[in-house]
Amino acid sequence: MSRGRPFRALVSLEEALERVLSRVGPVDRTETVPIDEALDRVLAQDIKATMDVPGFERSAMDGYAVRAEDTYGATDMEPLMLRPVGTVHAGEVPSGTVGEGECMYVATGAMRPEGADSVVMVEYTEEVDGGTMTMIRRAVHPGENVSRRDADIKEGTVPLRAGARLGASRIGTAAALGVSELEVYARPVVAIAGTGNEVRPLGEELGPGQVYDINTHTISAAVRGLGGTALVLGLVRDSHEALSEALDKALAMADIAVFTGGSSVGERDLLVDVFGERGEVLFHGVQVKPGKPVLAVDCGGKLAFGLPGYPTSCLSSGMLFLEPVLAKMGRRPQATPVAVEARLGRRVVSTIGRTQFLTVRLEDGTAHPAFKESGAITSMAEADGYVIIPSNVDLMDRDEQVEVHML
Amino acid sequence: MSRGRPFRALVSLEEALERVLSRVGPVDRTETVPIDEALDRVLAQDIKATMDVPGFERSAMDGYAVRAEDTYGATDMEPLMLRPVGTVHAGEVPSGTVGEGECMYVATGAMRPEGADSVVMVEYTEEVDGGTMTMIRRAVHPGENVSRRDADIKEGTVPLRAGARLGASRIGTAAALGVSELEVYARPVVAIAGTGNEVRPLGEELGPGQVYDINTHTISAAVRGLGGTALVLGLVRDSHEALSEALDKALAMADIAVFTGGSSVGERDLLVDVFGERGEVLFHGVQVKPGKPVLAVDCGGKLAFGLPGYPTSCLSSGMLFLEPVLAKMGRRPQATPVAVEARLGRRVVSTIGRTQFLTVRLEDGTAHPAFKESGAITSMAEADGYVIIPSNVDLMDRDEQVEVHML
Repeated sequence: MSRGRPFRALVSLEEALERVLSRVGPVDRTETVPIDEALDRVLAQDIKATMDVPGFERSAMDGYAVRAEDTYGATDMEPLMLRPVGTVHAGEVPSGTVGEGECMYVATGAMRPEGADSVVMVEYTEEVDGGTMTMIRRAVHPGENVSRRDADIKEGTVPLRAGARLGASRIGTAAALGVSELEVYARPVVAIAGTGNEVRPLGEELGPGQVYDINTHTISAAVRGLGGTALVLGLVRDSHEALSEALDKALAMADIAVFTGGSSVGERDLLVDVFGERGEVLFHGVQVKPGKPVLAVDCGGKLAFGLPGYPTSCLSSGMLFLEPVLAKMGRRPQATPVAVEARLGRRVVSTIGRTQFLTVRLEDGTAHPAFKESGAITSMAEADGYVIIPSNVDLMDRDEQVEVHML
Repeated sequence: MSRGRPFRALVSLEEALERVLSRVGPVDRTETVPIDEALDRVLAQDIKATMDVPGFERSAMDGYAVRAEDTYGATDMEPLMLRPVGTVHAGEVPSGTVGEGECMYVATGAMRPEGADSVVMVEYTEEVDGGTMTMIRRAVHPGENVSRRDADIKEGTVPLRAGARLGASRIGTAAALGVSELEVYARPVVAIAGTGNEVRPLGEELGPGQVYDINTHTISAAVRGLGGTALVLGLVRDSHEALSEALDKALAMADIAVFTGGSSVGERDLLVDVFGERGEVLFHGVQVKPGKPVLAVDCGGKLAFGLPGYPTSCLSSGMLFLEPVLAKMGRRPQATPVAVEARLGRRVVSTIGRTQFLTVRLEDGTAHPAFKESGAITSMAEADGYVIIPSNVDLMDRDEQVEVHML
């Protein structure tokens, strides 16, 4: 009967993160998406402006297009008169030109008519003599209230560059140029398999000693929340053959393989064997709580993770590694959790040499430990955030000031 | 020729927000989604536990299940001997019971065998006499290393309540109970129509005086980013009939109607007329820059917004109102933008009586104004964040300390 092999030397969290991050790079695959599905994606092409935006000089105001020199000296007290020669609405081509002593009504956004070089705001004008003349009460200088033809984007420039994250305003920049499809980087793909012979799929009736599959669902949600594509392979029997086959499938389909569970040492050993046959073990065992048994292997440039089977250990350690890895692969900044100050609700002991992530509920500025046990998903689901207890601290006192990182 | 009616009295931003927020409530419609599509949704049902999780007492460790009293006094120096009577892997039903002087190997997560009340960790045991006896080097107390049958969730409790936002760990709580579909609140639906006869759909060839549709794309991205469902109705001609028809359609399909554009006073008037016929005008004109011409109407309990046509004004004011409105309708907390301190890169003038949202680029701790003009979407797309200049400030000096809210 196997009593399990000991962990190799546990590595520190920092070292573990460095080892996995040194093995992955940004995903280079691209895909083309309609502009209305591009939100939050990362642009994979430079967008060069093939036109000026706008493509014409336009009025920035509702008012009268004029020759500026015709307005010089106009004031409320001494208005001048100009002869109106038409109207330009936005989207229209002006029907004529503006000559000396003439003006033309222009709507905001309408093309500047030839001859005119400026616009007097409608507020400073008045129709007189039954609309046959227009009274002008303000002088304007050449160019006043007229917007340049490239005021937004100049032809030949590159207003969007590869690597840009597409928020609403950048989507607007692409739209301004008439671009309706965008080439974006593919999301990193993570294949997820669950192990543990006691674990059954949702919807099945449980037998004695069995539990429902939690981990493939939490890890798949985490992956999607981190901007990745989750491919759930389902549950795999704890046999060398089944695990090998599942790993091959995962590596063929995805950029990263994540296998959850196997809480027991025997199951972990099996996973270590199978993973070890496919690549280089980067670490097995991290100085972190919960989540010590994390296994990471570099399978020819693709990472495979073995996460602990206990649901809170699984999700907590999964987030710890997947967040920076998917940020790097997906070319996104890593999220910085919002942190709030609180007092610790009770004394907490920790283990020297392990960084502990202690889940807490917040109540009136007090952080109450929410951790039940690694096997209890509610240790996280009922928490508002977590306190990081550094690896060189073994005790935190009640009422001690702590920083709570919000979940 | 219309010179446009004046705005009614401009309202302050605070007053405008209060007026729209007082007219909307959380969306009550629900829908059922598979658990793997529930991330970030808001639960619409209480989930009551119909079972204990786990449903059995289990070993928290790999080790030997024993009767605690049989181990009393066991130490490294004076180990005791117990007779092994079998093995329980996780997911298995123990094949027998543990009697006096006996022990049974149990894997982590495996059912506690009858008769045993505790588990000695495998590290403190040793197989001897060819596996016929097990040496025990530590005493355990009753219950030690055995996890309660309801350690995670107790039958009859309600571990997830309606209104809970579904993150990965709460999805795990549902999975733990075998729940594979969740009833969640529907996302607020926003119908978006673009107006402005100069505005053309992406992909068409532009004629003189025409520009591409930016606003329906930026607003639809903003709505999706805020957790809403965007229905883009496309571009509508600036006629009373076409606008009326589009508004009826929008109100029939959606919880909120958003019409963009009409930059010119004449077009705005038309929209005010059409909207005014369908409901109560809450305000037309807000003391904010950019975005002054925002129009909000309560159409029998559904909000209709008229946003300015200039792209930066449109998106900026759209976010300003849609963010709190969709947060309330979608039962989500409003996002608090991350703010950083910076020095202003140059002197900026503002208008007393208008709250200004000044977009800026950040470089080495200096905030350089990025605003070009309201018509330029790049005023936002090239910005890192914005500085809020309060309505009672008309000048901010170069090098003044400012808070930049990151976009």
